[in-house]
Amino acid sequence: MSAPIYMATVSAPTNIACIKYWGKASTALNTPINSSISITLSQCDLRAVTTASASTSFTKDRLWLNGAEEDISGSRRFRACLDGVRALASNKIDSETGETVVRKEEWSSMHVHVSSFNTFPTAAGLASSAAGYAALVSALVNLFDAKERYEGELSAIARQGSGSACRSMHGGFVAWRMGQKADGSDSIADQVADENYWPNIRVLILVVSDKKKGTSSTAGMNTSVATSQLLSHRATKIVPESMKMIEEAFLARNFQKFGRITMEDSNQFHATCLDTFPPIFYMNDVSRIIIRVVHAYNDWSGEIRAAYTFDAGPNAVIYTLDKYAVEICALMLMFYPGDADDYFNMQDMKEKIKAFCLDDSLVAAVRKTCMVSSIGDVKMIYYTKSGPGPQILDPALALIDPVTGLNIRKP
Amino acid sequence: MSAPIYMATVSAPTNIACIKYWGKASTALNTPINSSISITLSQCDLRAVTTASASTSFTKDRLWLNGAEEDISGSRRFRACLDGVRALASNKIDSETGETVVRKEEWSSMHVHVSSFNTFPTAAGLASSAAGYAALVSALVNLFDAKERYEGELSAIARQGSGSACRSMHGGFVAWRMGQKADGSDSIADQVADENYWPNIRVLILVVSDKKKGTSSTAGMNTSVATSQLLSHRATKIVPESMKMIEEAFLARNFQKFGRITMEDSNQFHATCLDTFPPIFYMNDVSRIIIRVVHAYNDWSGEIRAAYTFDAGPNAVIYTLDKYAVEICALMLMFYPGDADDYFNMQDMKEKIKAFCLDDSLVAAVRKTCMVSSIGDVKMIYYTKSGPGPQILDPALALIDPVTGLNIRKP
Repeated sequence: MSAPIYMATVSAPTNIACIKYWGKASTALNTPINSSISITLSQCDLRAVTTASASTSFTKDRLWLNGAEEDISGSRRFRACLDGVRALASNKIDSETGETVVRKEEWSSMHVHVSSFNTFPTAAGLASSAAGYAALVSALVNLFDAKERYEGELSAIARQGSGSACRSMHGGFVAWRMGQKADGSDSIADQVADENYWPNIRVLILVVSDKKKGTSSTAGMNTSVATSQLLSHRATKIVPESMKMIEEAFLARNFQKFGRITMEDSNQFHATCLDTFPPIFYMNDVSRIIIRVVHAYNDWSGEIRAAYTFDAGPNAVIYTLDKYAVEICALMLMFYPGDADDYFNMQDMKEKIKAFCLDDSLVAAVRKTCMVSSIGDVKMIYYTKSGPGPQILDPALALIDPVTGLNIRKP
Repeated sequence: MSAPIYMATVSAPTNIACIKYWGKASTALNTPINSSISITLSQCDLRAVTTASASTSFTKDRLWLNGAEEDISGSRRFRACLDGVRALASNKIDSETGETVVRKEEWSSMHVHVSSFNTFPTAAGLASSAAGYAALVSALVNLFDAKERYEGELSAIARQGSGSACRSMHGGFVAWRMGQKADGSDSIADQVADENYWPNIRVLILVVSDKKKGTSSTAGMNTSVATSQLLSHRATKIVPESMKMIEEAFLARNFQKFGRITMEDSNQFHATCLDTFPPIFYMNDVSRIIIRVVHAYNDWSGEIRAAYTFDAGPNAVIYTLDKYAVEICALMLMFYPGDADDYFNMQDMKEKIKAFCLDDSLVAAVRKTCMVSSIGDVKMIYYTKSGPGPQILDPALALIDPVTGLNIRKP
């Protein structure tokens, strides 16, 4: 009989920051120059699924991403996650016999095979690395039955894969505390509130087409740290105060404050990108008109009902409350060539939008502000909400063949 | 015989800031929160021409702008310029007889008729108020034979019409010192170097179409002062150092440093606009691709040969040296649907551009960076250079009829 293959399969969520991470304090440790905070999204539509397996029969570490094998021989990020989790491994106990099947020291003599895929639409520019590294770390944790030595240690490991991945290790509203220690061990994520704390928060993701490939986050933030004269002022003077205020706003379920801080921080993040030399542009004209529509809608409402935020790309994320979601969707569709069927992920939502009648004065107010009849187009719109952290999946959903130890996911 | 009509006609230039003015310290005095510096442009293509006239026969103050009469009854700006200059009036002496024709006290018993037009293309979004108020003040100075009580006093008066107008009171490279005094009297412009100091500096103005009317400068900067968390850091910590460095660079005729500071400051100004709530966008996708082309050109060159700057609108201004101007123009035309005949103001330049053969490696480098075959379109391109301050024009060019005292300029 050949050597056994041990496996674990998990799914992990992505997250959308309300206070953005931009700038590394240490490139080696992936620590940030400022704390950040985000909402973890539901895994119904957007998730990364990862199977991690280990066996003495494997001759090298291998990784398949969306069905295609990647060369990981030089991947510092993958290595940091694998070694980090394996250092916390436990003995593997057979649940039926109670016998120790693998002594914890033995894990380091096995190579791993990992397969991962994500449900993010190709080239949508939605940050998939946060979900991907959170899934990798969580799959390894389950494979090795790893135990944290201190709270947040697993998030610190995920952070070394991708900074924002540490926030995807929890559900709900999650803060990444920048930390103070030289080894980065206190640069960890903690859950401010779980996904049920403010149940009527909703999230719209407008996937905007962009022909020009953007600057990668890592390259972009390194250039910003090196050249922006505004960035360190933001990181040291402004963000600490914004973090405090947005946590208070979230805990008080105060959408007015939460929304305003979220929009201000998104704008300020993109301002520091523009203050970079050469300047970095992530938003395009379609993004900017979405901003105008949101402001026009809030102005018409007399309150903040919708709050946009943009990551390192042109896609818009709009936070709102469930009671306003249909209205906002109907408003956005006014400007796009298609109808609800063409854009939305949820059947239920499509029907509601088609049945919704926009207030004439709202239409007039938005048209007046935007002064355009079309705001380009978006590829699709996700309607979602906050959700939990990584989830263990049934072994039947594994992406690695339990006999051959090879990837079974087709590209 | 009816009462005599006294007249003076001048032309005045516009200017393009290298360190931008953004934010008023006092709205009443039109004083800035930071010093700024600009290049005064030649009046060959872009200028404001103004005739100011005075007579005891006039029954009220009147103003015609581009041939149409404006209601100036509530114009604090016009009033500040008129009263400011008139307070410095001299006796009018007949040059032939030596007799005093108007005693200086008598000027205040006369109303004025003013007619002004500018050669800026309609709706081009090129700041015409700087040239307009510099022309108004200069015309009044000549009408009243006004004498400064201290150096820069006339620029302080023009400042009250439009902030950047104070810089158009001089030719060449001009600094507007923010000043310290509570009455704004030391918030004045001085000439750092005249228009002949660095004779091979050239200026390209790419007039970019924009359907959406932008936020006015005054409204925009007031919102920025009220809401941007980055603006005061820029004004107090960054600009003082940038001013010092750009003056040194200009005086050393160092285009590398001059160009870099100019681009960084433009980006930072637009960054503070984006950090405003709601955010202000002056640049559009066409503007942004011009930025990318300039960076690609400089990267290919291995030095800074072109430096963009954007005011409160989508138009690009590119500073360069005469030896690179044709190459840059030819490069830009690669991306536009028309040829040189469609865009340029100078016949001579059109021929040179059409005859110019772009280096293949440059074309490839720029195409690679921009990843687009078209960057939208521009309406026209001005090729110009630095020029002198306001000029007295021949009475034959007056815009006011010497007999009727009425505007003779057709709209």
